[in-house]
Amino acid sequence: MSKVAIIGAGPCGLSILRAFEHLEKKGEKIPEIVCFEKQESWGGLWNYNWRTGSDQYGDPVPNSMYRYLWSNGPKECLEFADYSFDQHFGKSIPSFPPREVLQDYILGRVSKGNIKNKIKFNTRVINTVYRNDKFEINYQDKVNDKTLSDTFDYLVVSTGHFSVPFIPEYEGMSSFPGRIMHSHDFRDAEEFRGKNVIVLGSSYSAEDVALQCNKYGAKSVTIGYRHNPMGFKWPKGMKEVHYLDKLDGKKAIFKDGTEQDADVVILCTGYLHHFPFLDESLKLKTHNRLYPPKLYKGVVWQDNHKLLYLGMQDQFHTFNMFDCQAWFARDVIMDKIKMPSDDEIDKDINKWVSMEEKLENPDQMIDFQTEYTKELHNISDYPKIDFELIRKHFKEWEHHKVEDILTYRNKSFSSPVTGSVAPVHHTPWEKAMDDSMKTFLNKR
Amino acid sequence: MSKVAIIGAGPCGLSILRAFEHLEKKGEKIPEIVCFEKQESWGGLWNYNWRTGSDQYGDPVPNSMYRYLWSNGPKECLEFADYSFDQHFGKSIPSFPPREVLQDYILGRVSKGNIKNKIKFNTRVINTVYRNDKFEINYQDKVNDKTLSDTFDYLVVSTGHFSVPFIPEYEGMSSFPGRIMHSHDFRDAEEFRGKNVIVLGSSYSAEDVALQCNKYGAKSVTIGYRHNPMGFKWPKGMKEVHYLDKLDGKKAIFKDGTEQDADVVILCTGYLHHFPFLDESLKLKTHNRLYPPKLYKGVVWQDNHKLLYLGMQDQFHTFNMFDCQAWFARDVIMDKIKMPSDDEIDKDINKWVSMEEKLENPDQMIDFQTEYTKELHNISDYPKIDFELIRKHFKEWEHHKVEDILTYRNKSFSSPVTGSVAPVHHTPWEKAMDDSMKTFLNKR
Repeated sequence: MSKVAIIGAGPCGLSILRAFEHLEKKGEKIPEIVCFEKQESWGGLWNYNWRTGSDQYGDPVPNSMYRYLWSNGPKECLEFADYSFDQHFGKSIPSFPPREVLQDYILGRVSKGNIKNKIKFNTRVINTVYRNDKFEINYQDKVNDKTLSDTFDYLVVSTGHFSVPFIPEYEGMSSFPGRIMHSHDFRDAEEFRGKNVIVLGSSYSAEDVALQCNKYGAKSVTIGYRHNPMGFKWPKGMKEVHYLDKLDGKKAIFKDGTEQDADVVILCTGYLHHFPFLDESLKLKTHNRLYPPKLYKGVVWQDNHKLLYLGMQDQFHTFNMFDCQAWFARDVIMDKIKMPSDDEIDKDINKWVSMEEKLENPDQMIDFQTEYTKELHNISDYPKIDFELIRKHFKEWEHHKVEDILTYRNKSFSSPVTGSVAPVHHTPWEKAMDDSMKTFLNKR
Repeated sequence: MSKVAIIGAGPCGLSILRAFEHLEKKGEKIPEIVCFEKQESWGGLWNYNWRTGSDQYGDPVPNSMYRYLWSNGPKECLEFADYSFDQHFGKSIPSFPPREVLQDYILGRVSKGNIKNKIKFNTRVINTVYRNDKFEINYQDKVNDKTLSDTFDYLVVSTGHFSVPFIPEYEGMSSFPGRIMHSHDFRDAEEFRGKNVIVLGSSYSAEDVALQCNKYGAKSVTIGYRHNPMGFKWPKGMKEVHYLDKLDGKKAIFKDGTEQDADVVILCTGYLHHFPFLDESLKLKTHNRLYPPKLYKGVVWQDNHKLLYLGMQDQFHTFNMFDCQAWFARDVIMDKIKMPSDDEIDKDINKWVSMEEKLENPDQMIDFQTEYTKELHNISDYPKIDFELIRKHFKEWEHHKVEDILTYRNKSFSSPVTGSVAPVHHTPWEKAMDDSMKTFLNKR
């Protein structure tokens, strides 16, 4: 009987736990599984925590979640094939739910069986080496501050890559008389009411943090992009300018000559693929991209097929793509799927990587990741789900955003699982200040 | 030839490097030494860094230093016996210097020789085990993200204990619509101008962070103590009340019934002795106290005499006490000082611990730590320094603080090394807004 370690009980970790649960329910014998989770609860990034820096045990806080976060993509695009939104909530709900609603949905799927028993909470993996065909894992029981170890045949790394911020330095930071922070530590836009906010970046964090600050009463929001502007039609009080040159006292000076008084600088400069708990030879080293090299089918570590990574891609597709990866990973572990030759693996990885390197715009990227996800879907028994509809939804969503960045969250989409169409939410996003599940689910 | 690992190049790490340098200069052969430092520079806590959370490599930021920090004790009490302030600055300087001046002094002592060559900067110790009479250290070259390892005969832990915050939770924190932070992440009091600031704690951080906020224009500063108030005569705009009961929306409600509008809550709730890079059996587990158990003479690990800890005590005495510890540790490593029997070691530790447990007030604590430091001083060749004068200074300083918490930093003390008396600073602390070394050292 083989033994499987999973590191992380966020969406990806829960996907593979769920994949094994499906097999077990069919009466198949599954391996012994231990899932290590450093937080006290499951759900990963979807747990809000007021803490920043380190937790009560001195361990770095992985949470990047903030208050008032609403899904920035249609929920239909991330729906689980084996557990629809309609099933969980007992009714159709709008397409862009706030955090608490999505967290409830993710945890609803795994709460009934015995998945939770396989998770060691408040447990930090210290170090992992591969020796004599086994993964030796050294880990810490954080509550009792005890170091323990165990060995495993397989290792699944599902720790995510939006937990450890990348924080660059700009001239003048060490003498800026205001606050400098990364979006990882952003918790509540209310803190910036009446402030002049500088946001650096041009990806999802920059877009959403900037809009949040504007929505909750910042005096001004100035976004500095590095390569290309997001280019949305920003509302009053917001502007997008070219790249921060330096801070000079309280002034932010941009490459295009813009000078802006600044109370706070929020670095939306992305995250690191960070695996300090893995030995050198096991460590995925990549920037955030749609196809990190060295992973066969985006999952199996090329140098050691007993090491599997989930969700390490940059993402349009999320929860159901993680599921497709997890079902595939499970079948590799169960030896239901055989690995091809090293040559074929290399060729397959190179094919995807070279396709990825040619992508030029969001529509092409959506197509690329949809094709990848469909391929995985075809080789496992992950239940039926309409990825062609999801592809269409993503493209429509992109166009909605370009039309109006303030109103795209008020649109409705149809489910790729049940076909039901989401109702329009009772309050447009830009007016919805209360993000509680109770308010969201109830009629106004 | 034995091989010594030192973890940390802050004041304690630099003390033992300096101790070995003294021997080497006398022509003695010293062991091979490797000092691991996770920061890119030396000086430990005395490095200011605008960063909070993690550094550019994803590694937790150890810095707890903030702008406008001035020494909170007379510099004469921490003076190095082998390198006086007069020698470093070429003149007498006032007794309470700001951070940059102290940093310059600490680094001045070690900058001339070849100490820096022994330090591996940007290097994080991952894990340390003791096996076959050797310390096996696994470490990461952060810049190149490479994992390496090496073995040593001796291990000196000098990582300090003011780098990893202890962050407790209070009711209402998860819905408080303002900022919650630990003093570890406090960088600049300017951020809190015009704000209602809540400071929780009653030790040095609470005292100084609260005063800083007041000095730089906070609207109000309310300090919540847990057991005993600091009880100083607080200036206008500050008050001290009994223990936070809970946060209710934006309101802080204290056990004594005080209700206070709050924009920010600063937790000055102390730090953890945190050694995630040491194996279970090597780990010192203690709260912050004047005599942590299991350390012979406060330095040698009772269970393994090749493991030495520096500066793990709560501190009145600092740099010159670290030196006395370092000179002692060096002589233990050089086998110039022989360890007594296990029984004698146990008796000696117990003697100090039971004395420590009876201490009731600051004067007794000062006496206790002065006696401890003097005992160490007597058994090594650390140069002449007048610890009786330092004892007297500490007590006088305590009384100055009780007299007036705003003006105690304007007093002058005499040097226990050179005897010279410090000049009065050109600007009283409460009016000195510029803390640069240039302004401090120059005549107004």
